[in-house]
Amino acid sequence: MTHFPKGFSSCSLNAGIKDDTLDFTIIYSDTRAAAAAMFTKNQFCGAPIVIGKEHVKDGYLQAIAVNSKNANVATGEKGLQDARTMTEAVAAELGIDPSDVLPSSTGVIGVPLPIEKIVSAVPGLKAELRPDGLEQSAKAIMTTDTYPKFRTRKIGEVTLAAMAKGSGMIEPNMATMLSYILTDAKIEADDLKAMLQRAVNVSFNSVSVDGDTSTSDTVAIMANGLAGEVNLAEFEAVLTDLCIELAKEIARDGEGATKLVEVQVTGADSDTVAKKIGKSIINSPLVKTALFGEDPNWGRIMSTIGNSNDAVDTSSVSVSFADVYVFQDGAPTEDKRAELEEYLKTDEVLIKISLGTGTGTATVWGCDLSYDYVKINGEYTT
Amino acid sequence: MTHFPKGFSSCSLNAGIKDDTLDFTIIYSDTRAAAAAMFTKNQFCGAPIVIGKEHVKDGYLQAIAVNSKNANVATGEKGLQDARTMTEAVAAELGIDPSDVLPSSTGVIGVPLPIEKIVSAVPGLKAELRPDGLEQSAKAIMTTDTYPKFRTRKIGEVTLAAMAKGSGMIEPNMATMLSYILTDAKIEADDLKAMLQRAVNVSFNSVSVDGDTSTSDTVAIMANGLAGEVNLAEFEAVLTDLCIELAKEIARDGEGATKLVEVQVTGADSDTVAKKIGKSIINSPLVKTALFGEDPNWGRIMSTIGNSNDAVDTSSVSVSFADVYVFQDGAPTEDKRAELEEYLKTDEVLIKISLGTGTGTATVWGCDLSYDYVKINGEYTT
Repeated sequence: MTHFPKGFSSCSLNAGIKDDTLDFTIIYSDTRAAAAAMFTKNQFCGAPIVIGKEHVKDGYLQAIAVNSKNANVATGEKGLQDARTMTEAVAAELGIDPSDVLPSSTGVIGVPLPIEKIVSAVPGLKAELRPDGLEQSAKAIMTTDTYPKFRTRKIGEVTLAAMAKGSGMIEPNMATMLSYILTDAKIEADDLKAMLQRAVNVSFNSVSVDGDTSTSDTVAIMANGLAGEVNLAEFEAVLTDLCIELAKEIARDGEGATKLVEVQVTGADSDTVAKKIGKSIINSPLVKTALFGEDPNWGRIMSTIGNSNDAVDTSSVSVSFADVYVFQDGAPTEDKRAELEEYLKTDEVLIKISLGTGTGTATVWGCDLSYDYVKINGEYTT
Repeated sequence: MTHFPKGFSSCSLNAGIKDDTLDFTIIYSDTRAAAAAMFTKNQFCGAPIVIGKEHVKDGYLQAIAVNSKNANVATGEKGLQDARTMTEAVAAELGIDPSDVLPSSTGVIGVPLPIEKIVSAVPGLKAELRPDGLEQSAKAIMTTDTYPKFRTRKIGEVTLAAMAKGSGMIEPNMATMLSYILTDAKIEADDLKAMLQRAVNVSFNSVSVDGDTSTSDTVAIMANGLAGEVNLAEFEAVLTDLCIELAKEIARDGEGATKLVEVQVTGADSDTVAKKIGKSIINSPLVKTALFGEDPNWGRIMSTIGNSNDAVDTSSVSVSFADVYVFQDGAPTEDKRAELEEYLKTDEVLIKISLGTGTGTATVWGCDLSYDYVKINGEYTT
């Protein structure tokens, strides 16, 4: 069942940036909300990221304005001016301070933002804001996504609503392409920030579709306090769970993906090593194409593990697909190819890797690499 | 024109390892030859790599025995025994010491080598050895390659012959999948080794098809001295040039590739940083699919540069495709998409990146990512 947090509303529309689908949305809180955000570490980050960092620094936001179909990245000085103009237009319409607006843009890189289209779409939007508009917002921020990612949760009186988008250029480093989490709980900005960082680390930052960290990654959380206090440990558990659920949806809806792939690494020297090895499996085009072809070519997993920059004791490695062990304690098992071929027909592949040398663990998510991935990305702008 | 070095001969045949194509070859020198070799750094390296390292340690080899269609990797204790058995059978046939035989295997990982097929194919091979058999050897070592890679050069009386194979699982780290270089020059093993390392660094180690370092990478050079001494500087220049030529052939013949891509990086803080950034461009599935689709989506180059772990001064970056500048001194140029779209119809794409902060340079090679890459790798073992 869908719940909506108190005091939040939104509206979405088509501003004609590229085609006639939804491409602009505003999310608004009736009161200034405590806020935290994490952004891409890509050095060619988008112009809205630069402005967004300034605006969230004081721990408060009142609105989020997002356009899709154009990322406003690598657009020079004009791009920065356009991002400012967008926040100013939205703030004027809502009657709030521009510095309480977080701007986001997602889409093609290197093409100037048609800012005049956005500016002329804004007047009158305040009257269109509706509490149940958030599901539409999840749609308006999509690019190559095939479905919107939106989830809500209740903790007593408190409600959390979260949305995310992202399908390609996905190996988030601090956050996914775009994700917004809204709650009516009363939580301090510092607590929000700490909980968000921990949750993002085991969710969005553990997903990869193609190994490319986007220039636009943003995850922001706003807490307007209208439903009162909440147990922070309980809140963090729900927040983490929500982020993992959305992160998995992003992998499942990866560009051209036909399978969600989960890699569980255990027995590593550290969690960091476990995550690196898991990510290398998820990012290997050889592994990803074999999974797409449902080809029981498990040797590619071994090769990828062997390429780790961290020392691996090859004699203690075990690898299984769910319960089908193909390599155990450093040696191949009796031929399991027929069994494995059968298992690979699933659309949720689980790969378990035990390194057998330490206590480090990590779980990461990704997807297979299909003809459609090539099609989507070979024809993106033409 | 093809030349053959004095005192080398070879033969190739089908041992029935997988199908009825050539899958086994022996390369033989009439005399023990000074030798050097470089092998994969993959920790799950193939069994023949383990044996090969032992055999080349003393700086001498007299024969190379290679099978394709099975890599003998992740095959446990039996795999090591099989690799030894292969060298012993070949040594017995040739009447030489097994420790002067370098074994190599390339193909599927994790499937036991059908050693009995190889052993029964060896008797009688010595009578089949021919000096002009080397071109056939280049064919016998192929897996998903679409054509053999073979080159020869003369330096005065001295001849060099070199072959390489490799099309997928290609991001050599010390060597390409398989490359053998033969010369009748008289050169000490230590000199051979030093020259080989320098040449490999700027050739095979600067190529990537899919970012996956193979478990079987081997490059070996043998110098039997039958044509006498040679100017070492001149020899190294020719050797380097030969390695670069073969490395480019491997990228051009990358699995499913329709375009050879060369990335020249200049103005980096160091050669190492330049190479890392060049490799990241060559390995980005987003860049590679856009090149396949001839889509002028140059923004993906910017995103990939921005993801470098090394600091980039985004305000001094320039990027061009051959002479078509899309980004200059930190800002996008006037819209060049039409011009770029026209340029991308070429089958040899040149991307030039100037970072504008140092004197480090690197040139790397790769290829685009096509539907056929997915097809080849989705159906590899089935």
